[in-house]
Amino acid sequence: MPAMRGSQLLGPDVLKALESDPSALDPEVLEELHAEDLAEFVAELPEAEEGRVLDALPLELAADVVARLPLERAVELVERRGHERTAPLLLEMAADDRADLIGELPEPLREQVLSAIEAHEPEVAEDVRALAAYEDDSAGGLMTTEFLQIGPELTAAEAIDAVRRLAREQDIESIYQIYVVAYERLVGVVSLRDLILGAPAQRVSELMSENVARVAPEDDQELVAQTMARYDLSVIPVADAQGRLLGIVTIDDVVDVLEEEATEDVQKMAAMVPIEESYFQTGFLQFMRSRLTWLVVLFVGELLTASVMHRYEADVAAVMDLVIFVPLIISSGGNSGSQSSSLIIRALALGEMAPRDWPRVLYRELGMGLALGSMLALVGFARAFMGVAGADPLAMGLTVACSVVAVVTLGTLVGSLMPLMIQRLGLDPAVSSTPFVASLVDVLGLFVYFTVARFIFALAL
Amino acid sequence: MPAMRGSQLLGPDVLKALESDPSALDPEVLEELHAEDLAEFVAELPEAEEGRVLDALPLELAADVVARLPLERAVELVERRGHERTAPLLLEMAADDRADLIGELPEPLREQVLSAIEAHEPEVAEDVRALAAYEDDSAGGLMTTEFLQIGPELTAAEAIDAVRRLAREQDIESIYQIYVVAYERLVGVVSLRDLILGAPAQRVSELMSENVARVAPEDDQELVAQTMARYDLSVIPVADAQGRLLGIVTIDDVVDVLEEEATEDVQKMAAMVPIEESYFQTGFLQFMRSRLTWLVVLFVGELLTASVMHRYEADVAAVMDLVIFVPLIISSGGNSGSQSSSLIIRALALGEMAPRDWPRVLYRELGMGLALGSMLALVGFARAFMGVAGADPLAMGLTVACSVVAVVTLGTLVGSLMPLMIQRLGLDPAVSSTPFVASLVDVLGLFVYFTVARFIFALAL
Repeated sequence: MPAMRGSQLLGPDVLKALESDPSALDPEVLEELHAEDLAEFVAELPEAEEGRVLDALPLELAADVVARLPLERAVELVERRGHERTAPLLLEMAADDRADLIGELPEPLREQVLSAIEAHEPEVAEDVRALAAYEDDSAGGLMTTEFLQIGPELTAAEAIDAVRRLAREQDIESIYQIYVVAYERLVGVVSLRDLILGAPAQRVSELMSENVARVAPEDDQELVAQTMARYDLSVIPVADAQGRLLGIVTIDDVVDVLEEEATEDVQKMAAMVPIEESYFQTGFLQFMRSRLTWLVVLFVGELLTASVMHRYEADVAAVMDLVIFVPLIISSGGNSGSQSSSLIIRALALGEMAPRDWPRVLYRELGMGLALGSMLALVGFARAFMGVAGADPLAMGLTVACSVVAVVTLGTLVGSLMPLMIQRLGLDPAVSSTPFVASLVDVLGLFVYFTVARFIFALAL
Repeated sequence: MPAMRGSQLLGPDVLKALESDPSALDPEVLEELHAEDLAEFVAELPEAEEGRVLDALPLELAADVVARLPLERAVELVERRGHERTAPLLLEMAADDRADLIGELPEPLREQVLSAIEAHEPEVAEDVRALAAYEDDSAGGLMTTEFLQIGPELTAAEAIDAVRRLAREQDIESIYQIYVVAYERLVGVVSLRDLILGAPAQRVSELMSENVARVAPEDDQELVAQTMARYDLSVIPVADAQGRLLGIVTIDDVVDVLEEEATEDVQKMAAMVPIEESYFQTGFLQFMRSRLTWLVVLFVGELLTASVMHRYEADVAAVMDLVIFVPLIISSGGNSGSQSSSLIIRALALGEMAPRDWPRVLYRELGMGLALGSMLALVGFARAFMGVAGADPLAMGLTVACSVVAVVTLGTLVGSLMPLMIQRLGLDPAVSSTPFVASLVDVLGLFVYFTVARFIFALAL
């Protein structure tokens, strides 16, 4: 076995050897690899090789590898292998992964695959159809239907035996949290730790915790992640309004959700339609679409600045030096607004804040804008006072200083209140992106600047 | 027991009752609450009440509550209670939480607390000192020293007995992954599931997996999170270069890390020094500091635009209409740059990309910039052609169109290559924030615009 370094499994070394000579597929070696490393390797293979690698693996590992392929790639694989040769692989997959993959298949392949599965294990096909009913990004869409449930009247020793038997019969992965069900309702949860450490004769009803954090199948995946993070859960049960246990969501899926949601938020905040795959896996045209829509919207919005500038052209002609500070003024509002909107969007995503908190936010951001703006105004005043060509230095300095205070404050207010308003309307606050806030503040900032200039220069003249 | 709704534990109802009458502290009721809910409740209490609630709780739960308080608040609590009354609480805490809290205490309180602990359990004090040696954001800083280890020669039945005995004696929480150690070196991992489902006489050496993903104590917490997410691990062992097992990191700590790192990235990308606490918990002055530094840097950088504008003032005086499109041109570069930088920063954070990928990124973003810029240029041309006052419409339209293509491409290139370069220098790429990229592109964009204008208007005149 090659030596392991840092966090690396032995994957990279073996994979490198395989790449140089893919014919040297030794099942013994492949089995030692982690399914995630294998999946990455298989995803890079040409189509012809892909089948040979999968066939060389034990069925269970092959199923795990297919489950970890990018979904598009897995769909292509099912299309190439056909429904008959794919059914055994699908039967070995975890219920949630299986449902996700089948849900992505085009018709009529999907029905063919389901029929092939039905021929072997009818209840699995039924399970797939049931899971398909839930939204992808809901608790129901994340959950698996493979979990352990026992009755409250068992003793700890009996319960351990039941766990052993059920886990073997139904090939259940997740056996550390065992749900206690009475009259078809979830009444408690007991950990395998408590069963093992408890006295063998103690009843499950005494060992279990009745206070079970749970989610509903229609709950958003973000709520699932927040609840599990809050209560440090590695598994959370999904139950319907009647308290019937439908499935469980495991922490590994939630970790993926957290990464995915953070990525989505970052992309939305940069004025993009979020992309599903990673940077290099996303096609050029798909990227264009994801980026172009918002760029055009922002560009058209920013056309307003041209109209504002046009309107004040005479002022600029009168005091040419005014033009010098246009980019400086509007960018200072964009920058403070971008800080505020990022803070608020993230606080909303983490559930630290709600739209009803707007008065506190308004109060704080108003103070922040005035304070930050005043500091920047000092720098701006100095630059304008010292560095103009023809205009009255004092009037120019005052115009820049007053505008900076006003525009920075405008930025903090628009940046903070906009996400709250958008969330209040039931939309995702992350769309009130940095560029969106900046564009709005650009337009408003120009008005402020030229209004201030008119006032001060009228006094100075 | 009040009915549970959605993901809510019964916390909120009981807490509301407690708030209206905090004297009605029923230990039976308090015990049913989750430590996280209690911690939030305690954090809001006045100092006098806080002690009463903690004293009403069983010691183990009280310790868990203190571990979940905001760190600053927990430090104040230790200061108020003194080292003698805090030591028993600290002894009940998980090793990692205990070390984190003690590490934050001011001297001489820290030494007093450590002495008090030493008087009860000398090896715990030693453990705290050992953990204190690691950086907070390293694997060593996250790990706990409470884990199970057994020898490879045990049978499954003997191993289960050993787990039971060790977990009881040492009060170990995390018993589902058991590490196999021979000659003081980590040689494998076996899950409690495999021990329970395996044949009782089978040896641990046969059941264990030798291919153990692990991290080194000095590894960054982001690498720990990435490794656990990649291999779907709920626990990861921390081992030194000699393969000696030092501790374990559990997934709940990593979920916190993921949220924390995503928040930090978002804040850095908005040109802020990340704040530690939530929005409302952060004081006004602390916020000012976190926001002002970058605002001043950006403002001073943006002063360059004033110099560029000053330099081209004569051009503007000659063709007044040029001034109209200044904000439009520079903002289009900022927007495309912000998309690119967010994409690249996130891809780097998820480990999807490395600085050495720069040629692929350059190639792709160049194409993207030209394509996106051309689309926007059409809109820009139309607006400029139709809406100018005195200048030649065709020359103005061409100037805007060419500038938009160039500036948008400049934006995608600066936005994508800057984070790669910063990562290459060993710094955090998230500091190449949207406003930072936008400011740089503003300055460069003005040069481009006026250069294009000089060229085209010279031809047109």
